Amino acid sequence: MRPLTLDDDRLLPTEPGVRALAREVYGHVRDLPIISMHGHVEAQVLAEDEPFDDPARMLVVPDHYVTRMLVSQGTRPEDLGVPRTDGGPVEQDGREIWRRFCAGWHLFRGTPSRYWLEHELHEVFGVRVHPSPETADEIYDQLAERIASPEFRPRALFDAFGVELLATTDAPTSRLEHHAAIAASGWSGTVVPTFRPDALVHLGRPGWKRDVEELAEVSGEDTGDYAGFLAALRQRRAHFAAMGARATDHGHLTADSAPLERADAERVYAAARAGAVGPADASAFAAHMLFEMARMSRDDGLVMQIHPGVLRDHDPAVHERFGSDKGFDIPIAVDFVHGLRPLLSEFGSDPAFRCVLFTIDETTFSRELAPLAGAYPSVRLGAPWWFLDSPLAMRRFREAVTETAGFYNTSGFVDDTRAFASIPARHDVSRRVDSGFLATLVASGQLSLEEAVETAVDLTTTVPRTAYAPRGA
Amino acid sequence: MRPLTLDDDRLLPTEPGVRALAREVYGHVRDLPIISMHGHVEAQVLAEDEPFDDPARMLVVPDHYVTRMLVSQGTRPEDLGVPRTDGGPVEQDGREIWRRFCAGWHLFRGTPSRYWLEHELHEVFGVRVHPSPETADEIYDQLAERIASPEFRPRALFDAFGVELLATTDAPTSRLEHHAAIAASGWSGTVVPTFRPDALVHLGRPGWKRDVEELAEVSGEDTGDYAGFLAALRQRRAHFAAMGARATDHGHLTADSAPLERADAERVYAAARAGAVGPADASAFAAHMLFEMARMSRDDGLVMQIHPGVLRDHDPAVHERFGSDKGFDIPIAVDFVHGLRPLLSEFGSDPAFRCVLFTIDETTFSRELAPLAGAYPSVRLGAPWWFLDSPLAMRRFREAVTETAGFYNTSGFVDDTRAFASIPARHDVSRRVDSGFLATLVASGQLSLEEAVETAVDLTTTVPRTAYAPRGA
Amino acid sequence: MRPLTLDDDRLLPTEPGVRALAREVYGHVRDLPIISMHGHVEAQVLAEDEPFDDPARMLVVPDHYVTRMLVSQGTRPEDLGVPRTDGGPVEQDGREIWRRFCAGWHLFRGTPSRYWLEHELHEVFGVRVHPSPETADEIYDQLAERIASPEFRPRALFDAFGVELLATTDAPTSRLEHHAAIAASGWSGTVVPTFRPDALVHLGRPGWKRDVEELAEVSGEDTGDYAGFLAALRQRRAHFAAMGARATDHGHLTADSAPLERADAERVYAAARAGAVGPADASAFAAHMLFEMARMSRDDGLVMQIHPGVLRDHDPAVHERFGSDKGFDIPIAVDFVHGLRPLLSEFGSDPAFRCVLFTIDETTFSRELAPLAGAYPSVRLGAPWWFLDSPLAMRRFREAVTETAGFYNTSGFVDDTRAFASIPARHDVSRRVDSGFLATLVASGQLSLEEAVETAVDLTTTVPRTAYAPRGA
Repeated sequence: MRPLTLDDDRLLPTEPGVRALAREVYGHVRDLPIISMHGHVEAQVLAEDEPFDDPARMLVVPDHYVTRMLVSQGTRPEDLGVPRTDGGPVEQDGREIWRRFCAGWHLFRGTPSRYWLEHELHEVFGVRVHPSPETADEIYDQLAERIASPEFRPRALFDAFGVELLATTDAPTSRLEHHAAIAASGWSGTVVPTFRPDALVHLGRPGWKRDVEELAEVSGEDTGDYAGFLAALRQRRAHFAAMGARATDHGHLTADSAPLERADAERVYAAARAGAVGPADASAFAAHMLFEMARMSRDDGLVMQIHPGVLRDHDPAVHERFGSDKGFDIPIAVDFVHGLRPLLSEFGSDPAFRCVLFTIDETTFSRELAPLAGAYPSVRLGAPWWFLDSPLAMRRFREAVTETAGFYNTSGFVDDTRAFASIPARHDVSRRVDSGFLATLVASGQLSLEEAVETAVDLTTTVPRTAYAPRGA
Repeated sequence: MRPLTLDDDRLLPTEPGVRALAREVYGHVRDLPIISMHGHVEAQVLAEDEPFDDPARMLVVPDHYVTRMLVSQGTRPEDLGVPRTDGGPVEQDGREIWRRFCAGWHLFRGTPSRYWLEHELHEVFGVRVHPSPETADEIYDQLAERIASPEFRPRALFDAFGVELLATTDAPTSRLEHHAAIAASGWSGTVVPTFRPDALVHLGRPGWKRDVEELAEVSGEDTGDYAGFLAALRQRRAHFAAMGARATDHGHLTADSAPLERADAERVYAAARAGAVGPADASAFAAHMLFEMARMSRDDGLVMQIHPGVLRDHDPAVHERFGSDKGFDIPIAVDFVHGLRPLLSEFGSDPAFRCVLFTIDETTFSRELAPLAGAYPSVRLGAPWWFLDSPLAMRRFREAVTETAGFYNTSGFVDDTRAFASIPARHDVSRRVDSGFLATLVASGQLSLEEAVETAVDLTTTVPRTAYAPRGA
Repeated sequence: MRPLTLDDDRLLPTEPGVRALAREVYGHVRDLPIISMHGHVEAQVLAEDEPFDDPARMLVVPDHYVTRMLVSQGTRPEDLGVPRTDGGPVEQDGREIWRRFCAGWHLFRGTPSRYWLEHELHEVFGVRVHPSPETADEIYDQLAERIASPEFRPRALFDAFGVELLATTDAPTSRLEHHAAIAASGWSGTVVPTFRPDALVHLGRPGWKRDVEELAEVSGEDTGDYAGFLAALRQRRAHFAAMGARATDHGHLTADSAPLERADAERVYAAARAGAVGPADASAFAAHMLFEMARMSRDDGLVMQIHPGVLRDHDPAVHERFGSDKGFDIPIAVDFVHGLRPLLSEFGSDPAFRCVLFTIDETTFSRELAPLAGAYPSVRLGAPWWFLDSPLAMRRFREAVTETAGFYNTSGFVDDTRAFASIPARHDVSRRVDSGFLATLVASGQLSLEEAVETAVDLTTTVPRTAYAPRGA
């Protein structure tokens, strides 16, 4: 049995002089509140405040970063309890799933999943031994006991984690009833929705027609034609904003934002309604809608989050058998410069517009994103995320963008996670890495310690609050 | 008020053992003369040797790295005194512009602009407090007083900076009268022109026709047809060479260098003269002219500097209102391998040809540029520049290219700047970063200290002198 | 004369605390056997076990990393003894070639060639002075004397180097007679072939027709049509496997793997036989054959090594005069995500299929390769190689892929070399760099020292043994 300990100086620079500086900077941010402007925790979890499921269903099954790593080494998804789309049999025994996870613990060495899980096990659940075949049952029992207790319910953890604000991600067709329930509950936590219209703007999707019909129903607008479709989206955005939303979220295959002529948009939309849209038209319409969404953001003040460049469900067989979000979404090269030019030419220098650009293609950090953010008043850079919300990638992000865009054209860390219990661990990584980067600037004579501390505090508080400030705030 | 100090060890590695080695290496290069083979200081400045304008017009207004950062955070270009193309009103009060700059000083944390400005303020102007709203006026007054004194005139600074040679960048239509005036003045400074024909080879440009007519006038060749156009360019190159030019400079959107058939080149040129050239033909002609310029370089010995991969004036509205070079030139991905193949196949192994390749697309450092420079005898790698002439990017350049191309296939630092007073700061950054990189090689057992010192001295002196040596030197 | 010494801690991290940890980790792997799963040493060398040629012909002439660097600085290939394709005169005097190499020794500063050569000279040949014009003859004489002695014959070196297994690279048309001779010789060394069908699947190649005819002869299959071509390849794969082969090897310009319809494949193959295949068809056929080779790997268990993204023979004149592999193969950007999707969709999750992906386009490490390897059970990542098998690039590889793919989705170091005497040096670099990386994880609180040691040992032994394990092992 290997003891599980957390080094208080973990992830800080290793050179003792720089580490001492980093420790000083980090000390000023480690206990600041968590501002979580982009994530995938369901509002329902906090509305219902039910105990989490068993340890495997809390920490393993829904975390596709964990399951994909085990799958990449030969474990079948079924044996990890990953539900099949056809409802066929998968492992039901949480303890068995947990044992399989523990047997693969060494696979996570050097990964952020390992870091987050260590942090959660140690800090949230009080575990003091490493996962292994020998310790699997002991840890499982300990976790199960904790999960059952009131202090481990979602709201109690939310409060214990020091979350100031949590933004969820929601379909335009959502009635946001869970957000309403939270607001009505008297609980003090702030949980705001985020408007994510991807399912509605990608015409080729199976289920699109059903979704626009649901959009009609929930918005009260007739989505039978393009004008009604736009009106319905506007209605939903207004509703989201009224429920506290700060932002929209747009995941596209490319960064293309070329608008269509009105007549073309109408024609393509009508073809989609008739079930007869081709892939080229669907792509053009998605690009067009990115442009239109920018227009609506300028009009209603919702901050526009854009993250292109992921080919979803690379293995069609995995998608067919297990559905989306199973670790087979693979990044591709992105061209932000040509792609976003139509959108930024129209709205990029408009004081009423703000956008945050995310990527998983690191090559764009220094080449495209930092120069864009260092020029356009509307553009902020999203945190490194997805495959990049890890210590080394976060450091590379700061190293690649700061010299061109500075610190104040970034927008704060986002945890982007479904794994509720990992939220503090994730924000802590970011604070440690930023403290280390700032300490290096101090140690190399580029910044005073006082400025480094001020910057670290800003990155944790002022910067996300400002980037996602509601209009007029 | 925060005191402004300069750490003598700034930018050197932070680990004390490596820092001591770096300090030793740096000590051998810190006071070597400045060889500035590529820049944008106007010869007129040194020909006329007038005092610089007020502090804001010297340090803020013309430096689009400074103005774009303030603009990216919401300041209007007009409020920074950036001239409008329509001559409309902009801020005239230098002191007011300076105050706005000082209020945004924190935005530059971690950027090379901050580093250069600190260096200039401290070393050139003797300022000892950080810019801030509280100190803005005090610093302004101090700078204004210095600028007015004789030791701060351009030639005095040139001499004080220890500049051995300064290359300017000039249009082929320039008569180089300011270079002639400098040569005739009896002043000892060496200022040479660089031949930059971009405006003439990009047929689509507004103003192109006027420029080729001016080319005819200044060259005495009839640019009415393609043959005359080539003859005129040859004539101007010869004149530049006679005036001391070492190099040409070519900024293209892509690296394409495919030659056209003679008849096609003639046809496209004629169409351009008739005002009827399409974008595809204009692009093809630009690629063709890159090839032709290589041929002329082989013939006349001017070193060919090539830097593709920037989309100019990303925001057309900014361009229309304020013109070019306002911080909205954004890098794009470049394919040097296919693009330059025609050019290098023809001239790359010819001992009479030399070229220097620059990029702002870092991905090409290890993938394309280092392998090309490590094979073709004619190819040298340009310094990291533009967005990349910063401490971390310079380090990444050495880390990415040295293992494949070594040190001696690079061509020395270039400051590439309009900001005259920043020249020593910029070269100093390069010397510090290279010293640090070399020290790391020593500390990791890959190089002796003696070799590191020799290499650092070579990179500062022999390497640029050799890369840009005039034919026969 | 500069003394040639080897720092025992070379390439380990420079910070003393991390270095101490790295030294501890490295101590557990430095003397482990060498598993060389991918290289270009000829089996004939070990079958015949003749003394190596003179020092220049052993260390300089065949190593295009050495010759290209000298060529890049103006030395003519002829003067380095590089054979001309037309058999014309080149330098014959090994001592003269060696002197030219020694005169250019400074060009290799900071390159892995320098590191490997230092290691070889010091550890294998006992040289104690740096190459230089003054020491060239002395070193030459010392090397010549050693090479002539029995302990420097290939098999003796193989044993002294501690090679556990050496995989060669062989054409499908090879009868593997040298491998058979080694097996029959009674010598204990394990030398296995690798199946590399590139010459046969790239239809446009000069010599293709001759090669498929030879394939027919050696396989006993009629390669007159496509079915026979496939049958012949299957026959050869079976023969290779019977001779101990673990893997196949595929170098393509792109990663395209889209299969053709059977009828199209037949048609294109027939056209090629008739000498009438166009470049588009040839490319499509190459992509198709990548898919077909994956199918055969699934069927026969040979691990499929794929390495796209190099434009061969960038300078046609060099190719015409000196042939292939002269340092003018230049990497290009690769799209693994779309390219390999057909292949991985069909075979990527099949437990009977395994592949190893190599690249020289570093941008794909974090963006494409790590996510693919971190999901598909069949995919392992090849070591950084070619231009990237250098200390800094190896470190960047670990930094870019580990956080997403972990350590256990990589496949162990490969030396990929023709330079037999450099094999220990190359593996040693990898062990030092990995030890340093693991030590950094320990020092930053992400891994225990015990786990780091275990991982380092795995990377050197278990990981390559498993990645290339024969079916059923």
